Amino acid sequence: MSGTFGERAMAMLAGLAAHTDEPGRLTRLFLSPAHARAAQAVAGLMREAGLAAHVDAIGTVVGRREGPLGARTLLVGSHVDSVVDAGWYDGPLGIVCGILAADALRDEPLPFALEVLAFGDEENVRFPTSLASAAALAGRFRPEWLEGRDAEGVRLADALTAFGGDPAGIAGLARDPGSLLGYLEVHIEQGPVLEARGLPLGIVTAINGQTRARVSLRGEAGHAGTVPMDLRRDALAGAAEAVLLVERAGAAARDAVATVGRIEARPGAVNVIPGEAAFTLDIRAPDDRVREALVAEIRAGIAAIAARRGLAHAIETTSEQAATAMDGALAEALEAGAAANGVETMRLPSGAGHDAMMMAKLCPAAMLFVRCAGGISHNPAESITEADADAAVRALVAAIRHLAARAG
Amino acid sequence: MSGTFGERAMAMLAGLAAHTDEPGRLTRLFLSPAHARAAQAVAGLMREAGLAAHVDAIGTVVGRREGPLGARTLLVGSHVDSVVDAGWYDGPLGIVCGILAADALRDEPLPFALEVLAFGDEENVRFPTSLASAAALAGRFRPEWLEGRDAEGVRLADALTAFGGDPAGIAGLARDPGSLLGYLEVHIEQGPVLEARGLPLGIVTAINGQTRARVSLRGEAGHAGTVPMDLRRDALAGAAEAVLLVERAGAAARDAVATVGRIEARPGAVNVIPGEAAFTLDIRAPDDRVREALVAEIRAGIAAIAARRGLAHAIETTSEQAATAMDGALAEALEAGAAANGVETMRLPSGAGHDAMMMAKLCPAAMLFVRCAGGISHNPAESITEADADAAVRALVAAIRHLAARAG
Repeated sequence: MSGTFGERAMAMLAGLAAHTDEPGRLTRLFLSPAHARAAQAVAGLMREAGLAAHVDAIGTVVGRREGPLGARTLLVGSHVDSVVDAGWYDGPLGIVCGILAADALRDEPLPFALEVLAFGDEENVRFPTSLASAAALAGRFRPEWLEGRDAEGVRLADALTAFGGDPAGIAGLARDPGSLLGYLEVHIEQGPVLEARGLPLGIVTAINGQTRARVSLRGEAGHAGTVPMDLRRDALAGAAEAVLLVERAGAAARDAVATVGRIEARPGAVNVIPGEAAFTLDIRAPDDRVREALVAEIRAGIAAIAARRGLAHAIETTSEQAATAMDGALAEALEAGAAANGVETMRLPSGAGHDAMMMAKLCPAAMLFVRCAGGISHNPAESITEADADAAVRALVAAIRHLAARAG
Repeated sequence: MSGTFGERAMAMLAGLAAHTDEPGRLTRLFLSPAHARAAQAVAGLMREAGLAAHVDAIGTVVGRREGPLGARTLLVGSHVDSVVDAGWYDGPLGIVCGILAADALRDEPLPFALEVLAFGDEENVRFPTSLASAAALAGRFRPEWLEGRDAEGVRLADALTAFGGDPAGIAGLARDPGSLLGYLEVHIEQGPVLEARGLPLGIVTAINGQTRARVSLRGEAGHAGTVPMDLRRDALAGAAEAVLLVERAGAAARDAVATVGRIEARPGAVNVIPGEAAFTLDIRAPDDRVREALVAEIRAGIAAIAARRGLAHAIETTSEQAATAMDGALAEALEAGAAANGVETMRLPSGAGHDAMMMAKLCPAAMLFVRCAGGISHNPAESITEADADAAVRALVAAIRHLAARAG
């Protein structure tokens, strides 16, 4: 395949998008037939780039170029699975960039081994697992995940066997952290920040920590016509105040986001004052202390709103996840790689989760974000430009050279 | 039946509550078997009070005491139908008070005829009609209502015939306005105002006019983790501002109430910024100009919120009903009747609709509200005290005497 990196990346991505479980749209779930076909296609692309490729016990495609005896390994990867009715770029872009970088560097000596990884389970759509592919490398795959079932009742272990994987071999995939130089991942931003700032590439500082909670308020239902305003205890009005508090506090906290995505008023009739209201909270920040302070501020604010309005309230934390800091030296290498190609970057947190979150538990990890149109993702409208894909590959190649120079 | 008015009223109400279509709870829908039995029971109570009673073509029980030749008629009534799983007082209280007043006055000459009415269709639960019983007297019964069907597919005309009514006779029920002195209705408040003010009785100034509307806001959905706060167009945050505007503006407008009873955020996932939000408005006031100004203020406020937040918005009025003023002279008679018994009253609007709303289209009408516990209604927990029922009957008797003295 010839042409610029951008042209070659876009052609590869179009080719991978053809592997879908649903005609007419892209759906490629973990261990599905489309995943198997895509994995073989990825292995083929890896081999064309001079890598020795195989599919491991958990279904990850591993393309390796050996390094000097006893040298550590630099990992570059992302995921090949998709959500239902997905776009082309979320996941495959990082794999394709890794393959093109390996191809570009095939005739250059490197002081480390290089591996390109195509993980199979990042989106957590089919089975109740979380980043199972990267977890296997990190030695954090939980055997009980094999018993998880998809919507059709198929066990993960059986799907993996049918795929050609090996449940018994997963434990052996765990890598020795001392053998690894680090993990680099190129990924579309899935947000609008780079587009808004007019930049093709961004360097991820951290993958946001996240708190999710469910808030309920209880006042008194009543007839919308007969209860005067000053005798009401309207749970929805209290919830409305809380929604605005969440928005205001989220905007004021550094690099944080805070969202109310669901709301319900009960009994939910046009002519009844809501006696109960419930809503969700999703609070994220790259700095755990910022997030914890924000959660505390929102909790206290909701308590104050409830007290002032004579409402009972409950706030139940449904999930909590610490932030994952990216490695400073690897982030600088990516930044230097972009700069070497004349591409200005910015640093930004990742609001979404990624394989790098799990890989960071194993070794230093860093991410390069690529601008995507309108910040749209998980949607067929997901799109990037060829020029930005080109910039991403060139930055990755230069970053690997930068690491090689530093290691040499 | 002997005892105080209060004791007798409570005993009658308990007796009527036994007529239900559902074992274990009170449900008495228009033209149901329980309605038929309750109508016969009411007719019996009317006859014991010295009234000539019959059930008319639309199922209304009419108990009449003749007046001097050519004299006008004073109507006193309320409704005998109920909502599903109802309380004992919403409706029957006014009928029982009318019967007890007629009994109390049976040996006193009156310069007008007196009729006690037990309407069958006020709650609008079974058929898609609106105040059909009172509408028949007002000459506003629409023949197409006969074709309306209940949830089982039964036509109103067929249900009426089975009940013993006469669809063909409805047109003949229309009264000559010139023959009527007016209409008085005793009813539980169905709101908390009298209880909050510590008063057993209230004089209704007007039945509120009402505007209902559906508001929708459209912004941009997005990933709750990746879209920074300053790049969001969160439709729910806009709706939350609107909910608080509705509450604030409703509280500031004289005697008005404004309610958001339903709200929805779409797509409605914990990790997605709401791209759309929709909610309902229910705005009521006894003065149409106050209501219209309030609606205009809320419309303008929502438009301003939407403009400031970059949201599209639409406000669709789904129903609009003018206020019904109560008759000043009849209201004064009720006030004087209460005062004659040493009972202090207050004037207040009715937030709920009543038969008096339709009767006011036929003749002067006024309502006496009775305090109900917690403002609760349309619920088995609906309750009033025997002492308040006693005060209501005594006030009604005195009001009729007051009207008699004025007419004499």
